Amino acid sequence: MVAIDLHTMAVFTAVEFSGVAAGALAGALEARQSRAYHYDFIGVLGLAMITALGGGITRDVLLGKGPPLAFLDVRYLLISLGAGCLALLGMGRAQRFVVRAVWLADAASLGLFTVAGISRALNAGLTMLPALLLGLITAAGGGSLRDVLMGRTPRIFERGEPYTLAALLAAVVFLGLERMGVDRTISTLAGCAAALALKLLSQRFQWKTPVVSAMRDRQ
Amino acid sequence: MVAIDLHTMAVFTAVEFSGVAAGALAGALEARQSRAYHYDFIGVLGLAMITALGGGITRDVLLGKGPPLAFLDVRYLLISLGAGCLALLGMGRAQRFVVRAVWLADAASLGLFTVAGISRALNAGLTMLPALLLGLITAAGGGSLRDVLMGRTPRIFERGEPYTLAALLAAVVFLGLERMGVDRTISTLAGCAAALALKLLSQRFQWKTPVVSAMRDRQ
Amino acid sequence: MVAIDLHTMAVFTAVEFSGVAAGALAGALEARQSRAYHYDFIGVLGLAMITALGGGITRDVLLGKGPPLAFLDVRYLLISLGAGCLALLGMGRAQRFVVRAVWLADAASLGLFTVAGISRALNAGLTMLPALLLGLITAAGGGSLRDVLMGRTPRIFERGEPYTLAALLAAVVFLGLERMGVDRTISTLAGCAAALALKLLSQRFQWKTPVVSAMRDRQ
Repeated sequence: MVAIDLHTMAVFTAVEFSGVAAGALAGALEARQSRAYHYDFIGVLGLAMITALGGGITRDVLLGKGPPLAFLDVRYLLISLGAGCLALLGMGRAQRFVVRAVWLADAASLGLFTVAGISRALNAGLTMLPALLLGLITAAGGGSLRDVLMGRTPRIFERGEPYTLAALLAAVVFLGLERMGVDRTISTLAGCAAALALKLLSQRFQWKTPVVSAMRDRQ
Repeated sequence: MVAIDLHTMAVFTAVEFSGVAAGALAGALEARQSRAYHYDFIGVLGLAMITALGGGITRDVLLGKGPPLAFLDVRYLLISLGAGCLALLGMGRAQRFVVRAVWLADAASLGLFTVAGISRALNAGLTMLPALLLGLITAAGGGSLRDVLMGRTPRIFERGEPYTLAALLAAVVFLGLERMGVDRTISTLAGCAAALALKLLSQRFQWKTPVVSAMRDRQ
Repeated sequence: MVAIDLHTMAVFTAVEFSGVAAGALAGALEARQSRAYHYDFIGVLGLAMITALGGGITRDVLLGKGPPLAFLDVRYLLISLGAGCLALLGMGRAQRFVVRAVWLADAASLGLFTVAGISRALNAGLTMLPALLLGLITAAGGGSLRDVLMGRTPRIFERGEPYTLAALLAAVVFLGLERMGVDRTISTLAGCAAALALKLLSQRFQWKTPVVSAMRDRQ
């Protein structure tokens, strides 16, 4: 039993850190593909780290219980910095493969980030609704911060891939199973699987969130 | 006496929550009228909640005394989420009326948000000047965060309606009466009335804050 | 010995507050030279204060140990507000001189802000890497926040003056000397001198950070 638990923990840790690395790579690629700005290496590394860690840091700042986890466990900084440096070197012919790997690692970790954010908020004594919100912020906050730092609106707010919807699904599955008294390892796995499934399906069938119909300004 | 106090408290609560709802409606309308971006429902709801709650949350993060009020008292999340959902449904012919109601609720609550922010900062042990600043942030922070998340400068920084000036007036009236030892209920009411009066007058006479003359770049 | 220490402290304080004033003046000038927006006095003062104090405030929010220093020691607010008001009045023929003085005060204080941020983070119990990051945020955070609030990417992320590199140099020199057990006054002075030297050299020889080569979108 303990062995299984340890095993699951190790899997979770691996998924989480691959998600951090994927976030950093995604942020660095975004910076290198920017048409509006000419980023130097500080910009690429900065946007890489903010994409990877911004969600968790925002969650911890909002929880108000001392320094963010990313400043206490140095692996977060090292992994995001390392992935950012890799992206600085460029990827030549591997780029297409890296982009695909980043997408997959991001999809696999999306649910885990959400669930981790919710757990942390519940442990800090918050109720379900704010905890759910902090779960979404953990998952989507890093990319959104990067978007704002690149002078644009967060992409998750716009018509497109149902990213936040997948995080929301993970949150609902996790919180529902928690309420039913299911073991936390299993509810976490189920939440992750649900988000991953929605991401894969939406990629396969090109599902996009609908635009809210524009409103004319009749003021 | 107690009855009067309770009565005043209830009025304050009603004004505060109508201000929260007005903030959420204003944020959602802004998102639906955006020309630069095509927001989905996550975007509209997100911008609604940030407009409504962003000021108070920023104040509480800056105070550094644990989770923001909006995460501890679930009514803030529920009201801003509810108002955001209403705005998602659209308002058809009621739009003109809603826009007017939002303006009024916002004008009526502007002073209260300012005074609430100042009180909270003073209670946390800050001195007058930082408390005043946190009062302004409570009142103007949500709309400003929304503007930044929409990729633009905060509107309160630009020539236009004297919004922050009205909040500043409320702050000065409140702090002045506090210093003179006036009862806090009365100084709060006076602050709110001053901000409301300035908003109504500036609307009536089309007062706008002047642009600071541009400076040529002689560097 | 004590006399020398007090003397050094006074020099540090003078340099720090001249750096705060320089930040506020730089922010106000930036606002007054904006082509995209027409700022009123709230905008100019707001951007002045955010440029001057935003880095230290962000550091303290991330440290999570109560209200930021800028809200506890009122001199920070008064100096940045005063410098912002000066910039509001305009500078006529003095503008060229002011711009030069701002550049120098900024260059002289850059290392000190970095070292102060690192010291504060180390005192709060953080390890070297997060402390270094918080040092850079202290030095570069205010200008970056101002850039984001003006609807653009932080300038430190783009090709140009090696600003963050100078801060990084100060950080490495300071942390290296600290590790070697050198007195903190001396390591602080050395860090400041290193940053100042790099700023002066890069100004003299027009050194600029290189752009990271753009990447085509092969997705």
